[in-house]
Amino acid sequence: MEQMKLPSRSENFSEWYNQLVLRADLADYAPVRGCMVVKPYGWALWENIQKALDERFKASGHVNAAFPLLIPKSFLEKEKEHVEGFAPELAVVTHGGGVELEEPLVVRPTSETIIGTMYAKWIQSYRDLPILINQWGNVVRWEMRTRLFLRTLEFYWQEGHTAHATAREAEEETARMLATYADFAINEASVPVIPGRKSETERFAGAQQTFSIEAMMGDSKALQSATSHYLGQNFAKAFDMKFLDENNQLQYCWTTSWGLSTRFIGAIIMTHGDDQGLVLPPRLAPIQAVILPIFRKEEERTPVFEAVERIKKQLHHLRIKVDDREGLTPGFKFNDWEMRGVPLRIEIGPKDVQNNSVALARRDIPGRDGKQFVSQENLELVVDQILMEIQSNLLQKATQFRDSHIFEPQDYDDLKKIVEGGWAYAYWCGSKECEEQVKNDTKATTRCMPLDQGSAPGKCVVCGKEATEKIYFARAY
Amino acid sequence: MEQMKLPSRSENFSEWYNQLVLRADLADYAPVRGCMVVKPYGWALWENIQKALDERFKASGHVNAAFPLLIPKSFLEKEKEHVEGFAPELAVVTHGGGVELEEPLVVRPTSETIIGTMYAKWIQSYRDLPILINQWGNVVRWEMRTRLFLRTLEFYWQEGHTAHATAREAEEETARMLATYADFAINEASVPVIPGRKSETERFAGAQQTFSIEAMMGDSKALQSATSHYLGQNFAKAFDMKFLDENNQLQYCWTTSWGLSTRFIGAIIMTHGDDQGLVLPPRLAPIQAVILPIFRKEEERTPVFEAVERIKKQLHHLRIKVDDREGLTPGFKFNDWEMRGVPLRIEIGPKDVQNNSVALARRDIPGRDGKQFVSQENLELVVDQILMEIQSNLLQKATQFRDSHIFEPQDYDDLKKIVEGGWAYAYWCGSKECEEQVKNDTKATTRCMPLDQGSAPGKCVVCGKEATEKIYFARAY
Repeated sequence: MEQMKLPSRSENFSEWYNQLVLRADLADYAPVRGCMVVKPYGWALWENIQKALDERFKASGHVNAAFPLLIPKSFLEKEKEHVEGFAPELAVVTHGGGVELEEPLVVRPTSETIIGTMYAKWIQSYRDLPILINQWGNVVRWEMRTRLFLRTLEFYWQEGHTAHATAREAEEETARMLATYADFAINEASVPVIPGRKSETERFAGAQQTFSIEAMMGDSKALQSATSHYLGQNFAKAFDMKFLDENNQLQYCWTTSWGLSTRFIGAIIMTHGDDQGLVLPPRLAPIQAVILPIFRKEEERTPVFEAVERIKKQLHHLRIKVDDREGLTPGFKFNDWEMRGVPLRIEIGPKDVQNNSVALARRDIPGRDGKQFVSQENLELVVDQILMEIQSNLLQKATQFRDSHIFEPQDYDDLKKIVEGGWAYAYWCGSKECEEQVKNDTKATTRCMPLDQGSAPGKCVVCGKEATEKIYFARAY
Repeated sequence: MEQMKLPSRSENFSEWYNQLVLRADLADYAPVRGCMVVKPYGWALWENIQKALDERFKASGHVNAAFPLLIPKSFLEKEKEHVEGFAPELAVVTHGGGVELEEPLVVRPTSETIIGTMYAKWIQSYRDLPILINQWGNVVRWEMRTRLFLRTLEFYWQEGHTAHATAREAEEETARMLATYADFAINEASVPVIPGRKSETERFAGAQQTFSIEAMMGDSKALQSATSHYLGQNFAKAFDMKFLDENNQLQYCWTTSWGLSTRFIGAIIMTHGDDQGLVLPPRLAPIQAVILPIFRKEEERTPVFEAVERIKKQLHHLRIKVDDREGLTPGFKFNDWEMRGVPLRIEIGPKDVQNNSVALARRDIPGRDGKQFVSQENLELVVDQILMEIQSNLLQKATQFRDSHIFEPQDYDDLKKIVEGGWAYAYWCGSKECEEQVKNDTKATTRCMPLDQGSAPGKCVVCGKEATEKIYFARAY
């Protein structure tokens, strides 16, 4: 039972991340290059993410369905930009049932093409619209440089695909789902994301507009945490999604797609984690509080465990774990649950039994400051309150960190310095050349243009030309 | 809006099934041969099945995880019987990222091999055991003759994979999960399954024992509805799953696997469906009751909808749908919801508003016998009661049908007649030859040997030799 310290975040953030994922028992490397095994603890976190999102999707009228994993290769070729974007990343099935297939099938990298094909079959009239379908599933993209959760050959996600009778409705849907992701990230994961519009360069292959939520990681790099695409009529035309409108005129649909993946687990890790390991927001944590019975003498066992059982009942509305493993020291267990990011530790020893008290230790406040002794009386109310405080404290800390690492550059030289350890928020003329230059000079890319900008124009930070919008430049995952 | 009748079950059961699946809006054919699209209504049913099973799995200490879709082909070859069983059904990825792979990858047909590889890495000591992991996901088997839900190239399922320190524990797990499936089928789906042991011929490739639950469909054919496999040490030896026991001796693990798939939706359809369409058990139905506002004059609209709103609130604990579609007759809507198998229809017209009543129509009892007028007062209690009655009535009807189609043959000629329209329950000596002869003569296969047989021996119905156990012979899906 070795219990080594993680590399520190400040010394080697990348290695800190890699080791944390393994040692917090979230995931493991699979035998196939670039694939991962999501272990039970990591999957329980993903299930909580799924639940929080799924409730939101269903509340806004969406329904779930399942479309096939295997897509004829020719389908991807129907939308020109789409195939250009995805062709280099495809996994291709060439043989089935022992024989070579007439047409190769690709393992879906995303499902616009197969879903578009089905929608074209299902949609006849405006009465069939809108179609608001989401799918939870796995996709495969043949990435070259992979990292657990952040970029894997196979990953898990949800992909929403909607079809509408008007451009306006599709635009509203795109905005609604972007707002849904931001609400989820901020209020469930305590990740203070910035929603905004992507540049043309950073758009989804085949989209007319791509929107994203962007989060700042603990090393100040950006992580695109979810996307919402307005597809216009591109896919409707490629897949012949037509409907008879109220005037009996044949029209192409307007479509959207939007997705959030297991990558978001990476966002949670790198937003909240510290040198002791993972720190989880209580609303998503698989274990919200761990109860540790602590005693030395055998005769103390029964009274301590009786108290544990009482407390477990008091906290039955929460996700609780009692760590009754034998043969491990309390110190080992403290470190273990800190590594796994459990928001609250509840310790009960013989003295606590006598005093009708427990010791509480908050994961978000290290050391003594996060520790307090409270009565067992009404413990459920105290614990609920503390979990809410942790949830909001994590958001506040992450917001402060983010805001203290965003700067508005005075000039281009300033921008170059800023993106070495933060995000630069600056006017940009909208040209690919300026975007390209920043990338070549600094490795920073454009992240997104916030939606709620004022209207005062300014000068592009790169070329000095007139610009109407500001954008975030940052190095990104 | 055409509304044709289904072919009748008695005339053409097979075509009845195919059309029902499409017209009840459960699923559709995908562009790739043998693949299906599970439509929102069908997926909502599957989500309810998932929930009912997942709760049971978690209550018995299992956790969920996710293992990769893509498996090196060589892994399957490590267990000889396993690869023989699955080789003909594999979908093979030969190209990734634009280049040919050094080793082809198969799309998982089942995950014993990849999970075994990971368990071998994770298990060191007896303290790491048991491992009780389940996975919800998709698998691909290259089937030649496919039918929606019953046999598709890609299907959705859960697969549990457990590793234990002793044979006994693994055997107990195999039995526990078989009992879990039987409990689920009987109490959630009202499908009266028979649990039992499969013959050697019908075993899972690589298993030492396979158990199944067998259900009788409305045409008296059998459908294997879930399986639980005792794998002994076969996979542990093939994948080197070893642990140090309490005496510091290196031992191979004992493993199990068990699964239930979207095929079970086929079992529900063919157990309960009638000539009007689908009939769903209330506990799993995506919509438990549909409310139909009925009125002719425009001035009746407001009072009727006010009553609908009140009733909707009374029934908020149920899964309710209000059918307020315009331009469709009540008759059309009746047929539509009958086709979709909604257990209870609640009609509200102007007279009901006056009388403070509603009309209730049970899906499981066609025509007038299933209709009653009840007060809006305490409607929630009445509806709860009726839904429970429907749930148990479906089980009772299916059990009666099953029991009236199971016969104990006098001799082999009798068996041949019986399996034309039912199941034959007879002594079998255990030889492959007798099994083969029945199959060749009648197309019936052995289904399972019930676990709770008496111990009186008898004579094999085929060869007349001594036999200790009875088995079901039936034609099967």
